[in-house]
Amino acid sequence: MVQTEIRVIYGDTDQMGFVYYANYLRFFEAGRNEYLRAKGKPYREIEAELGIRLPVVEAGIRYQSPARYDDLLVVETSMVQIRRASARFEYVVRRGGDALVTGHTVHACIDFDGAICRLPESLLARLAE
Amino acid sequence: MVQTEIRVIYGDTDQMGFVYYANYLRFFEAGRNEYLRAKGKPYREIEAELGIRLPVVEAGIRYQSPARYDDLLVVETSMVQIRRASARFEYVVRRGGDALVTGHTVHACIDFDGAICRLPESLLARLAE
Amino acid sequence: MVQTEIRVIYGDTDQMGFVYYANYLRFFEAGRNEYLRAKGKPYREIEAELGIRLPVVEAGIRYQSPARYDDLLVVETSMVQIRRASARFEYVVRRGGDALVTGHTVHACIDFDGAICRLPESLLARLAE
Amino acid sequence: MVQTEIRVIYGDTDQMGFVYYANYLRFFEAGRNEYLRAKGKPYREIEAELGIRLPVVEAGIRYQSPARYDDLLVVETSMVQIRRASARFEYVVRRGGDALVTGHTVHACIDFDGAICRLPESLLARLAE
Repeated sequence: MVQTEIRVIYGDTDQMGFVYYANYLRFFEAGRNEYLRAKGKPYREIEAELGIRLPVVEAGIRYQSPARYDDLLVVETSMVQIRRASARFEYVVRRGGDALVTGHTVHACIDFDGAICRLPESLLARLAE
Repeated sequence: MVQTEIRVIYGDTDQMGFVYYANYLRFFEAGRNEYLRAKGKPYREIEAELGIRLPVVEAGIRYQSPARYDDLLVVETSMVQIRRASARFEYVVRRGGDALVTGHTVHACIDFDGAICRLPESLLARLAE
Repeated sequence: MVQTEIRVIYGDTDQMGFVYYANYLRFFEAGRNEYLRAKGKPYREIEAELGIRLPVVEAGIRYQSPARYDDLLVVETSMVQIRRASARFEYVVRRGGDALVTGHTVHACIDFDGAICRLPESLLARLAE
Repeated sequence: MVQTEIRVIYGDTDQMGFVYYANYLRFFEAGRNEYLRAKGKPYREIEAELGIRLPVVEAGIRYQSPARYDDLLVVETSMVQIRRASARFEYVVRRGGDALVTGHTVHACIDFDGAICRLPESLLARLAE
C-alpha cells in the first residue's frame, strides 16, 4: 500500500461545500501514479519503455463522508488483483483516521495499436515485489 | 429516458487522445440535471423549494469505447429505482448508435442539516409521471 | 460574432457558490470551437487537414459578476486580430443581458514539429468571410 | 516568494500531450493557498476568522513552454501589490530551471454580504512580514 497526500483546493469543491464527486477519480489517479513510482516503474516509463497503456475499463466509488476545502487527504492505493491482461487498483481516501471515500479501478493492458495484450513479465515482477 | 447532448472539448481529453475517465461523471451530472428539468423539477428548485439535497453516495462506470475531441455525445439518463431516502440514476453515453460508456449513481436524500430524510411526496409524484 | 450556450453544472461551481475562475477558460474554448465550426472549419479539421495547431500563448480574463449553478450562459466569441503566425479571440460571457466575464486568448500557429508557421491562406480566407 | 510543488497527472493533460491551459489557474490557486499558509494565515482562516473573501477579479497568463504528464512543477508565488481593498499575486511555474508559464491574479476584498471592504489590518501586517 502506498500513501499519497492531496491538499484540497477551492477548484476541487462545489457549491455544497464538498469535494465534487468526479474529482476523487483524479485523486485515485494521483494515488495510482505514486503507487507505480514507489514500485520503481512510473506510468510514464510503462508507456515509453514497455509500449503499453493501461486505460481504465471500470471504476467504482463509495462516498461515505465529504472532504472539504483545504483538507489534507491521504490516498491509500493498493493493487489487489492481476490477471494476464488486466490489473485492479483499490483506493481509500482518508482525512486523519477517517475513511471518507473508497473505490477501485480496473485497467486493461493494450499496445499502442489499441490491441489487448498481456502485462509484460518485467512489470508483473516489479509489482509483485 | 431523457437525452442530453455534450460536445467534447479539448479540456475534456487527455494525452491518450480520449476523454479523461473522471469527466464522464461530469457528463452524468449534466444528464441528471436535464432529466430533472424535463420532469419539471430542476435540481436548483429541489434544493431551494424542497430544502433537500441529493448527494451522490455511490457511482459506477464501465468504459467500453473511448470518446474523442469534438465528438457530439448523447447522455441517456433514466431513474430506475426509488427508495424512501434514495434514488438511483442510470446513464448511457452514446456517439451515434454506439454505447461508449455506461454507469449509475445512487443518491441519498438529506436535509440542509445533513440528516437523511425521505424523498418528498411531491417530488416522487413528479418523477413517477 | 458567434454565440455558444453553456449550462452551468455543479461541477463548475466552487464552495463560494460561483463558477470557479479557471472554468471560464473551458467556456472560452467551447466558444472558440463553435466560432471555427460556424466559419466552416472546425478545429479538428484544422489539425487534421491543415497540419497545424493553435496553442494558446496568452490569456486574460476580467471577472465582473459571478455565474451560478444552472445558469444558462452565452459565450460570444469573435476573432479580432490576425497576424501572420498568430490569432486573437475575444470572449464575452453573458447571462441574459449582463456581461459577467470578458476575456481574450492569443494563439500561435505551429506545425506538428512544433515550429512556428504562417496561418494557411485557405484558413485566413475562411475566417475573413 | 513561496514555492509549491505540483505533480502533473493525466487528468491535467489534453490530447496535444500538454497541460491544458485552464489548469494553470488551478496551479496558481494551489500556490496562493500555500503562500498564505506560509505567511501564517491560511485562506480558510481568512474566510472563517476575518469574515472576508478574496474573489479573483482579473487573471492573466503567458504560456511560454508546455508542461507535460508527470512533470514535477514548482509554482513560485509572490504578492506584489496591496491596495486598500485588493491584492495582487504573481506566479511563475517552473520545471527545473525553466519558467514555463507566468501569470497574475488580482483579488477584491469583500465581506460575506458581497460588499467591497478594506483588507483587515491584521492580515496586511501578516502579509507584510
